[in-house]
Amino acid sequence: MELVSSDDIDAAARRIKPYVLRTPLLHSERLSDELGCRVLVKAENLQHTGSFKPRGACNTLLSWRERGELPERVVTFSAGNHAAAVAFAGRQLGVTVTVSMPESAQQAKVDNVRRYGGEIVPTDDLRGTCDRLAREHDCPALYPFDLPEVIAGQGTVGREIREDVQPDLVLVPVGGGGLVGGIGTAVKAAAPDCRVVGVEPALSNAVGQALAANEVVRLPRGAPTMADGLAAPFAGEHTLAQVRRYVDDVVSVAESDIATAWPDMIAATRLMLEPSAVVGLAALRAGAVAVPDGGTVVLVASGGNAAPPRD
Amino acid sequence: MELVSSDDIDAAARRIKPYVLRTPLLHSERLSDELGCRVLVKAENLQHTGSFKPRGACNTLLSWRERGELPERVVTFSAGNHAAAVAFAGRQLGVTVTVSMPESAQQAKVDNVRRYGGEIVPTDDLRGTCDRLAREHDCPALYPFDLPEVIAGQGTVGREIREDVQPDLVLVPVGGGGLVGGIGTAVKAAAPDCRVVGVEPALSNAVGQALAANEVVRLPRGAPTMADGLAAPFAGEHTLAQVRRYVDDVVSVAESDIATAWPDMIAATRLMLEPSAVVGLAALRAGAVAVPDGGTVVLVASGGNAAPPRD
Repeated sequence: MELVSSDDIDAAARRIKPYVLRTPLLHSERLSDELGCRVLVKAENLQHTGSFKPRGACNTLLSWRERGELPERVVTFSAGNHAAAVAFAGRQLGVTVTVSMPESAQQAKVDNVRRYGGEIVPTDDLRGTCDRLAREHDCPALYPFDLPEVIAGQGTVGREIREDVQPDLVLVPVGGGGLVGGIGTAVKAAAPDCRVVGVEPALSNAVGQALAANEVVRLPRGAPTMADGLAAPFAGEHTLAQVRRYVDDVVSVAESDIATAWPDMIAATRLMLEPSAVVGLAALRAGAVAVPDGGTVVLVASGGNAAPPRD
Repeated sequence: MELVSSDDIDAAARRIKPYVLRTPLLHSERLSDELGCRVLVKAENLQHTGSFKPRGACNTLLSWRERGELPERVVTFSAGNHAAAVAFAGRQLGVTVTVSMPESAQQAKVDNVRRYGGEIVPTDDLRGTCDRLAREHDCPALYPFDLPEVIAGQGTVGREIREDVQPDLVLVPVGGGGLVGGIGTAVKAAAPDCRVVGVEPALSNAVGQALAANEVVRLPRGAPTMADGLAAPFAGEHTLAQVRRYVDDVVSVAESDIATAWPDMIAATRLMLEPSAVVGLAALRAGAVAVPDGGTVVLVASGGNAAPPRD
C-alpha cells in the first residue's frame, strides 16, 4: 500500500491554507511545572468547527476538485467532529453533505453539524448506513480517517508543530489513526529522533488492537468512552500502514485517568477542550508514556466540542 | 490630575514585553453569525496567570525598579486575578507579595495566588486590610486599578488590539476601571472614531455610579455578582478621570444575562472563560450596546480562572 509522504502533506498544507486556521502552539506553565518538562499544547480546539478535522476534509474535497471529480454531494460517518468538518468544507465548495451519526452523539456536535448545513441520519451502524447512503445518492463517501487525502490533511498539524518547535515527544489522540499517522509522517520528516506516540481510550482501542493482531479488528460494542471523538469502531487499512511506519507507539488510558485529566487540563490551559483532547496528559500522568526529563513535549489538543465538565 | 497617555502605554509595552504574552485576537464565526458583525475575541484568558492583570502589575514593579524604588515586599488587595498577577510579577523580580483577598474568593483564584508564592490574608475589608499590612510591613501597596502604572500596563491590551485590527467597537469588562481606561486611551490614539464601551455587572457598578454622581461612590455590600473579578467596591480617582476622557460609555448587565452568556461564549470560542470575561457579549445581546451592523467588534475576554459552568 502506498503511504502518504511528507510531500503529500506539504501539498495539502498549500491546498487548504485559505480554508483553515494556523492554530497556536501554547506553552503551559502549569503543566510544565507539574511534569518537569516543557509542555506545549497545539490548540486545535481553536480550529474552524472546533477540531482539527477540517484539515482532512478540505484536503479531500480540494484534491477531488483538482482532479475534476468534485461531486454535488458527499456522505460520511462520524461521532461528530468529522461530520461538522465535512459540512464546513462542503459549504465552502458548494457540496451537499449527509452524515450518519450515532444516536448518542453529543448535542454540541449535532448542533455543530447543523450549523454548517449538514444533513444528519442517526444510526447505530455508522459505516453501513454511510455506505448505503452513498449507493442511494450515487455519490462518494468521505471517510473520517481511512483516505490518503484525509491523512495528508491531518498531517498538516504535525507540519505546523515542526515549524514552531523541535519537540522530543508528540502525543496524539487516536480514534481511527488518521491524525497520528499524518502527524508522525510530518514530524519525523524534520525530526526523525522525535518520538510520536498515539493515545487511545482503553475502552476504544481499535488501533492498538489492530497493531497487536496485525490486521484490522472490528471492536465489539462495549461501554462507550467519555472520549467520544475517539470511538472509532475499527482502524483503517491506510492508517494502520501509516502508523506502523511513522508512529513509535500507541498506548491506551483508563476512563478514570481521562476523567481526572479533563478538568485539570482545561484549568491549566484556559482552553475549552473535549475529553478526547486530554488523553495525552492522562497517558503521561499514568506513566503509560515516559516524560522526557527537561525535554519538549507537545500535546495535541484535538478538539473542544463538549458540554463543560461538572465541578 | 495628570492622565495616562498613549506614550505611557507605549513605554509600558516595551517595559513588560519580556514578562507577558502577546495574546491572540481570535475571530469567532459563531458569534459573528449571531450578531451580524465581525466579532473578535482578545483572549486575555491565555495570558500568564489566566488574566490580563500581569500587564499592570509588571509595569508597576518595573517602573519602580527603573526609579530605584523596588521594595522587598508589596501588599495588595484583590478578588484573585490581580493577586495572582502581583505574585507572578513579584516572583520574576524577587519581591515578596502579600494580598488581602475576600473570604469568598474562588478556589481557582486562591490556588493561583499560592502557585506563584503569594501570601494570602483572608478578609472582608479588602482595602483596609491591605493598607494595614502596608503600614505593618512598611512597604508600598500595589493597588489593583488606581495607579497610573497599572492603567498604562492594562492599556497594552488596547495597543495590541489596534495593531491587529481597526475596530468599530471595543467592549471591555469593568471592575475598578483600570482596564477600560487604559484600552480607551490606547485605541483612541490610533482610531479616534472607534467606540470604547465599558460593561459592568448591575450588582457591582462602581464606575457607572461614580460617573453618574461625579465622585467616587463606595458601594454598599450587596448580593455578590457571579462576575467576581469585577466586584470592585469603588472606582479609582485615576481610573475615573481616565474613563471620563477616553471611554464613550459604561453600561451594566443583569446577572441573568451574564449567566446565559457564560456557557454560550465558552462553547462558541472554545476558550475557558470566567463570568467576568463575557459581560461584553451579555451587553450586546441585551441591547445595552448597539451592534455596529457589519462592523468589527472586539470583545475583551479578561480572564479564565473559574470552575466550569454547570451544564
